[in-house]
Order: sequence, then structure tokens, then C-alpha cells
Amino acid sequence: MDGLGIHLLLELKECNPKLLNDIDFIRKALSDTAQTVGATVMGESFHRFSPQGVTGILAISESHISIHTWPEFGYAAADIFACGTTFHPREAAALLVEKLESQDPEIIEVSRGATIKTATS
Amino acid sequence: MDGLGIHLLLELKECNPKLLNDIDFIRKALSDTAQTVGATVMGESFHRFSPQGVTGILAISESHISIHTWPEFGYAAADIFACGTTFHPREAAALLVEKLESQDPEIIEVSRGATIKTATS
Repeated sequence: MDGLGIHLLLELKECNPKLLNDIDFIRKALSDTAQTVGATVMGESFHRFSPQGVTGILAISESHISIHTWPEFGYAAADIFACGTTFHPREAAALLVEKLESQDPEIIEVSRGATIKTATS
Repeated sequence: MDGLGIHLLLELKECNPKLLNDIDFIRKALSDTAQTVGATVMGESFHRFSPQGVTGILAISESHISIHTWPEFGYAAADIFACGTTFHPREAAALLVEKLESQDPEIIEVSRGATIKTATS
């Protein structure tokens, strides 16, 4: 891995809109994803907006997983930041795509702290 | 603004290492930044790691602000996700750069939900 961490930005398009507005489902989706890939959850913050939309954030010992949903567009913006090698962020991304039933996912990968690593390695 | 939100990834290099290891300072830096730019804090999660490093996440009504620090490298990876037009994420980014005394900041800007907006506007 180049850098100190991998940051995946997930553009989750054409999701199931009902799931995106269900805060209990979103909380379970993130928690189950973290557990399945072996990430360690340290804290969380989940909120439902009026008239719609959910924000969910998990602080994990390997950085964080977040999601913000727009049910009216069937769209969710998620990000998975993984430092270290405890888990594979692509595996977590695939699980979120599946759970939210996204039919048109796009994943942007950004290496974080890349020049730091180069300078010290 | 194109899309549903602006996501700034801040590569904060050459920061003051002492500040990066001070969880109280990091908490205040994020909270003060949110308050100054007019973001509404809905939840938070802050953790200090052993032997060093801090994770801090603010859930805000406009999405989130997060930071993960590596004091040993004088480096912090922050991100500011702002949906809507309540505040300018670049203003928040400038405040974090200043507070952490980063001498070599780099900011990556990603438009989130851009194709969603195009399809419905």
C-alpha cells in the first residue's frame, strides 16, 4: 500500500430508496460491514433528517466509515477510510454496494499521506 | 455548485506534531471551525490512540468533518463534506490549516452526486 491509508469515496447511485431512509437499516448496514471485514468500531453517530435522508458515521480504530443518503434521488455518498492493513476497504465497499442495492456504483480511490510515506520510507 | 455536495480531502503536512497528539486541542479545533463557518454539529466521536494519534469526527447537519492524525509524521488527514450552501467548505479548510499550523497543505476537491444533480436538474 502506498501512503498511510486508502480513502474510498463511494458514489452509490440507483440504490433502493426505501433502505436509504431507514436509519435502523443504515446503522445495521454499516455495523455489519465493519464487523464482517474485521474493523474495530470505537464510536458512532447516526441521524435522520426531515423530511428524509440519513447520516451515519462510524469511528473505527482504522479511521472511519461514513454515509449520507438522499432517498429522493436513490443516491448515497459513502466513504471508507482505512489505515493500516487490518481490513481491505474494497471488501467493505462491495458489502455496502450490495446491502444498499446500488445498481450503479462508482468508487473513487485516494491514497492518503502518500508523500509522507515516501519521504520516510 | 455542481452536484449534491462538495467533499474536500485535506492532506495537512508539516503540522505542529504536539497539536496533533492533543485530543482536547483537536476537539476544540474541529468544534470551533464548525461554529465559525456556521455548520450545525449533531454528534461527535473523538479518540486518542496509543502510543500516539487522534481520530475526531463531527457529524454536522451538512454532512461531516473528520480528522485522523499521525503526530510522528507531522501529518493529518482531514475531510470536510458539505452539502447545501450553509457554509463554504474552503473556509473551514483554511481554518483547519491555520489551527494545525500546517506548512504544506494540499486540498483535493471532489464533487459528490454530480451526475445525480445533472440528471434531475
